[in-house]
Amino acid sequence: MLVVMKRGATQPEIDAVCDRIKEFGITPVPLPGVERMAIGTFGSTSRAAADAVESMPGVSEVVPVSRPFKLASREVIASDSVVRVGGVPVGGGHALAVMAGPCSIESRDQTLATARAVRAAGAAILRGGAFKPRSSPYTFRGLGEEGLAILAEARAETGLAIVTEVLTPGDVDAVARVADCLQIGARNMQNYALLDAVGEQPKPVLLKRGMSATVEELLLSAEYVLARGNRSVILCERGIRTFEKYTRNTFDVNAIPLLRRLSHLPVVADPSHGTGKWYLVAPVALAAVAAGADGLLVEVHPSPDHALSDGFQSLTFENFASLMAQVDRIARAVGRPIAGAAA
Amino acid sequence: MLVVMKRGATQPEIDAVCDRIKEFGITPVPLPGVERMAIGTFGSTSRAAADAVESMPGVSEVVPVSRPFKLASREVIASDSVVRVGGVPVGGGHALAVMAGPCSIESRDQTLATARAVRAAGAAILRGGAFKPRSSPYTFRGLGEEGLAILAEARAETGLAIVTEVLTPGDVDAVARVADCLQIGARNMQNYALLDAVGEQPKPVLLKRGMSATVEELLLSAEYVLARGNRSVILCERGIRTFEKYTRNTFDVNAIPLLRRLSHLPVVADPSHGTGKWYLVAPVALAAVAAGADGLLVEVHPSPDHALSDGFQSLTFENFASLMAQVDRIARAVGRPIAGAAA
Amino acid sequence: MLVVMKRGATQPEIDAVCDRIKEFGITPVPLPGVERMAIGTFGSTSRAAADAVESMPGVSEVVPVSRPFKLASREVIASDSVVRVGGVPVGGGHALAVMAGPCSIESRDQTLATARAVRAAGAAILRGGAFKPRSSPYTFRGLGEEGLAILAEARAETGLAIVTEVLTPGDVDAVARVADCLQIGARNMQNYALLDAVGEQPKPVLLKRGMSATVEELLLSAEYVLARGNRSVILCERGIRTFEKYTRNTFDVNAIPLLRRLSHLPVVADPSHGTGKWYLVAPVALAAVAAGADGLLVEVHPSPDHALSDGFQSLTFENFASLMAQVDRIARAVGRPIAGAAA
Amino acid sequence: MLVVMKRGATQPEIDAVCDRIKEFGITPVPLPGVERMAIGTFGSTSRAAADAVESMPGVSEVVPVSRPFKLASREVIASDSVVRVGGVPVGGGHALAVMAGPCSIESRDQTLATARAVRAAGAAILRGGAFKPRSSPYTFRGLGEEGLAILAEARAETGLAIVTEVLTPGDVDAVARVADCLQIGARNMQNYALLDAVGEQPKPVLLKRGMSATVEELLLSAEYVLARGNRSVILCERGIRTFEKYTRNTFDVNAIPLLRRLSHLPVVADPSHGTGKWYLVAPVALAAVAAGADGLLVEVHPSPDHALSDGFQSLTFENFASLMAQVDRIARAVGRPIAGAAA
Repeated sequence: MLVVMKRGATQPEIDAVCDRIKEFGITPVPLPGVERMAIGTFGSTSRAAADAVESMPGVSEVVPVSRPFKLASREVIASDSVVRVGGVPVGGGHALAVMAGPCSIESRDQTLATARAVRAAGAAILRGGAFKPRSSPYTFRGLGEEGLAILAEARAETGLAIVTEVLTPGDVDAVARVADCLQIGARNMQNYALLDAVGEQPKPVLLKRGMSATVEELLLSAEYVLARGNRSVILCERGIRTFEKYTRNTFDVNAIPLLRRLSHLPVVADPSHGTGKWYLVAPVALAAVAAGADGLLVEVHPSPDHALSDGFQSLTFENFASLMAQVDRIARAVGRPIAGAAA
Repeated sequence: MLVVMKRGATQPEIDAVCDRIKEFGITPVPLPGVERMAIGTFGSTSRAAADAVESMPGVSEVVPVSRPFKLASREVIASDSVVRVGGVPVGGGHALAVMAGPCSIESRDQTLATARAVRAAGAAILRGGAFKPRSSPYTFRGLGEEGLAILAEARAETGLAIVTEVLTPGDVDAVARVADCLQIGARNMQNYALLDAVGEQPKPVLLKRGMSATVEELLLSAEYVLARGNRSVILCERGIRTFEKYTRNTFDVNAIPLLRRLSHLPVVADPSHGTGKWYLVAPVALAAVAAGADGLLVEVHPSPDHALSDGFQSLTFENFASLMAQVDRIARAVGRPIAGAAA
Repeated sequence: MLVVMKRGATQPEIDAVCDRIKEFGITPVPLPGVERMAIGTFGSTSRAAADAVESMPGVSEVVPVSRPFKLASREVIASDSVVRVGGVPVGGGHALAVMAGPCSIESRDQTLATARAVRAAGAAILRGGAFKPRSSPYTFRGLGEEGLAILAEARAETGLAIVTEVLTPGDVDAVARVADCLQIGARNMQNYALLDAVGEQPKPVLLKRGMSATVEELLLSAEYVLARGNRSVILCERGIRTFEKYTRNTFDVNAIPLLRRLSHLPVVADPSHGTGKWYLVAPVALAAVAAGADGLLVEVHPSPDHALSDGFQSLTFENFASLMAQVDRIARAVGRPIAGAAA
Repeated sequence: MLVVMKRGATQPEIDAVCDRIKEFGITPVPLPGVERMAIGTFGSTSRAAADAVESMPGVSEVVPVSRPFKLASREVIASDSVVRVGGVPVGGGHALAVMAGPCSIESRDQTLATARAVRAAGAAILRGGAFKPRSSPYTFRGLGEEGLAILAEARAETGLAIVTEVLTPGDVDAVARVADCLQIGARNMQNYALLDAVGEQPKPVLLKRGMSATVEELLLSAEYVLARGNRSVILCERGIRTFEKYTRNTFDVNAIPLLRRLSHLPVVADPSHGTGKWYLVAPVALAAVAAGADGLLVEVHPSPDHALSDGFQSLTFENFASLMAQVDRIARAVGRPIAGAAA
């Protein structure tokens, strides 16, 4: 770390900081400047030491140098990780993995019809929510276990792997019995009890970025899962909250190459939440693939204007098929065609 | 609601929207304009209807009119709610409630010393974390049940009421046995399973605003707790995430009078997280009181540079006593002196 | 517009709002609801009327319906506009226009070397700043008129068209004498005197989005130029300011298809400022093209680590050539190959 | 500065960075760590050197240590600056300076009536716009020179000093002939040609923070004016752009004590723009005074629902008088009563 002292910091203040640093077993290195003194350190620095000196008299600022995430870091694990969702490999230069389906599992008919349609269009994984986080307590919160059973039936019929959200530690076992991949939603990205719980079971985890989480915070949340022993984590960019009002979120396309640079974990893109407008989903999906995404997560509904949630950002079957044809061209241009269903 | 059609929307598109609205038992009212058609509605509109029409052909935008929160709304409950934390009334024009203490319960000595100091300076409620949410899995995560026992001892000795955080539904019973008020932290503001759980037990709830939650989302999260039957909710403004880099968060002082206008629930301010710099805590605390806050939540530590978390935003005992003297002057100027400890 | 009254608004308050609306020559349409009254309007509504009623007793909210921009709107001009920069057509399905060059014109040698390199790699337009906006008064602010002369020489030699920034109305004539296109930088997007000035001369204008401007505000600023008679405006997405710290800005890829939907004006992308990191420029450039951008604006420098500004986001000649090869594949996949230099 | 190398940076890469640093006349100090190498520097570091090394092979990050603003910094000028607006001293512990008046000068009657009312209520300075920046080209843009003449008449009658906005360098002379203080609006905070122009004339400058400017950028813009020789700059916090939708802006109350800590310049608060809702102006004004503001800037209009701009955030005469009574109590509690008009 680097400790920047205030202009006019006294020698006793500087000495006190050096002494405090030594208490953590770290060697301070004074770096006198024309305007002010800074103090560097040799060797490993704990975050605790940085926090400790930050409030000392004469200190202006403390700058950490080591990255706080380890197992998620490409500096620790250099080569791409491949995460298998059912039979579908995600990441590591494998074919593009398309996950599609309704926001909510509303009925057996709606789900099976959607599963057949997305499979026919080339998706390999079915997504759909049985347990739904909703900002109002008065809106539809999902079919729960009944929804899981419908998902299992859809897999049996179509061969699609299943990804579905889990909201609380108490539901992890039930969801993990059915799902091929557990989704942690954006609102729960820093629900640490839940991260611990999915980290202690073996099914892969799709971790969505919180709506105002930094890239570093996303990687730290992945670190929670990895640190508990589950090394199968897929990162998902799904848009961040900004001041822009036309769109529901701002899809952070920068995050895709940035995450791939900082981490070895696969990165997928959710253009449905990332835009919140069905008519922006296709161009932003193409953008994500061009930027290097390992997969896509797309909301599809037989009749978006009758959906119980997120209809305004869901594609019809026809629009989804059209999207897949466009994605195919871009995916080939970047050298990774779309993965077929595990049939 | 108001449905705004696109310029050039066709009559069949307009008719289809009107028909779809009628399916929800609502009467559409066409409002032709020079540039485009809009459609208003009579009577109550469900959010589901708004979502349904938003994706229909020819629709440009749907504008909801009713507020989505009910029990939290001042339109439903006109007079201020008073929430009792131990013996301390919060809100409703009662004296200013000051909650102070360490970020984390680190030891018995640290906690008891802090409890005595904040009581001596005039605080009525002790705050401190036994279960800590931390963005990295490698940092101190709290003493857990041992911390709760220390808090109980501090209450027995000092008479201070206790507010402490709960992180997951599985811990609600244990925390509620000891705490006088359960804190829901910013990261869990939309952890709905947890909101349901604290809504189903009788202890008051201190609900912190998520770091990028809108005021409406905060009130919707309060609605979750209220809808489960627990009517004792205190709202807490603790700073929001912005682009500003000097401060950890931007304290949203607008939110204090705005929440008091929209809702009958008490509103308290956390200038420690709201600024993230110990030297900004005092002026921002004064600002919050001047803006109408019903209470303050302040981090205090015997030795901030040795704190295991948040040292850079904690006040020393001396600085806290000085803050209380300044707060007293502002609190009197706005007609609500500081509440004494429930001794 | 729609005027939403407060719950409990009185009949005299409602009548007063209706009367006030009539003063603007507009017909109010009362829309009683179960919870509250709303008032719609027939016919055209001026923004002034909306502002007028917003502060009246009993009014909760005023929702405008008409879009505030006209000449920039696709509702007014349905088909794509094509803007010619020198001999290069931008927009309207024409080939992808690549504008490349140094952040600042630093010397004749640097500029000519860069012009030759970007032309060889396939760019059609040379970009480079003679007048530079810098956040500190102590940094290099450009060569001024000497820089313009160097740009003219580069055009004469290479045939590349020239785009360069103008900072203040007093410089518009001098810049317009040399440039094929005048750039309005992000910091000046709402410098209305400057927008008026470039609107009153005939050279095309490249209008960069302000770092925290909404899409609507960008289109309103374009409207300033269009309203003065200059119909040749190119819109430029260059990243917005968010909380993310790894990147300098967050490139808003949503804005590309959104602007193309709302407006007929061409849209180009600046991945150099949109990311602020040279190693993210290529993937984000590809994303922008896949999302439908009509052109790219890329910073290129012979020796980025010796650049007087923005070195950390500039590409070397080699990296730029490599980018162009990748762009070519994506551009072909979306059906619009790269435009060659006007040779 | 501190140069942080990538993990795995090679010795030749490290040597190259050290050599490049030496080219700027600066001494590099290698600081080997367990995970990676960092390089500190002795002595003054130019921003140019930091930019230069940031893009070199093996470099992960460059952290500047010196603050980029000088004349605006409290490290350079330790004691509070006092700026005189007409006869009214602002800053340096002087009495609270209240600047009030209409958003736009609409007519002689409106302006004189407002001037009399705000003077009667205790304001010392009249604010009002003759040249108005408006996001749409189709809205009222001010009376221009005629408005300046009305302001001069209001001063002659009431003795109030005058602050009014200037939009472009070409208007500086005309505005400076009449105004006692030139306002630079939020949209022009980084209009450097304008900052240069007001820096070269002697009237004080009220510099409003850009809607998404950091505190550091605000101080750098002040530095532009100071560097040109005008040492009379007043900083103004007027709310920043965030995701919150209920309010027009988020008033950043943290910025008030932060600016006073970083700079010697006076700091005033604009709660009208900072909230955008007339009913939030009073509580936020009180908050700003409690937090240490040296003055207030408040929009007042004889009939807000007939205002040509910003009616929804303007106070009536009656509400302004009520605000002044409340401000008086807080101002006395923090030891600085309201300044009377310079009569």
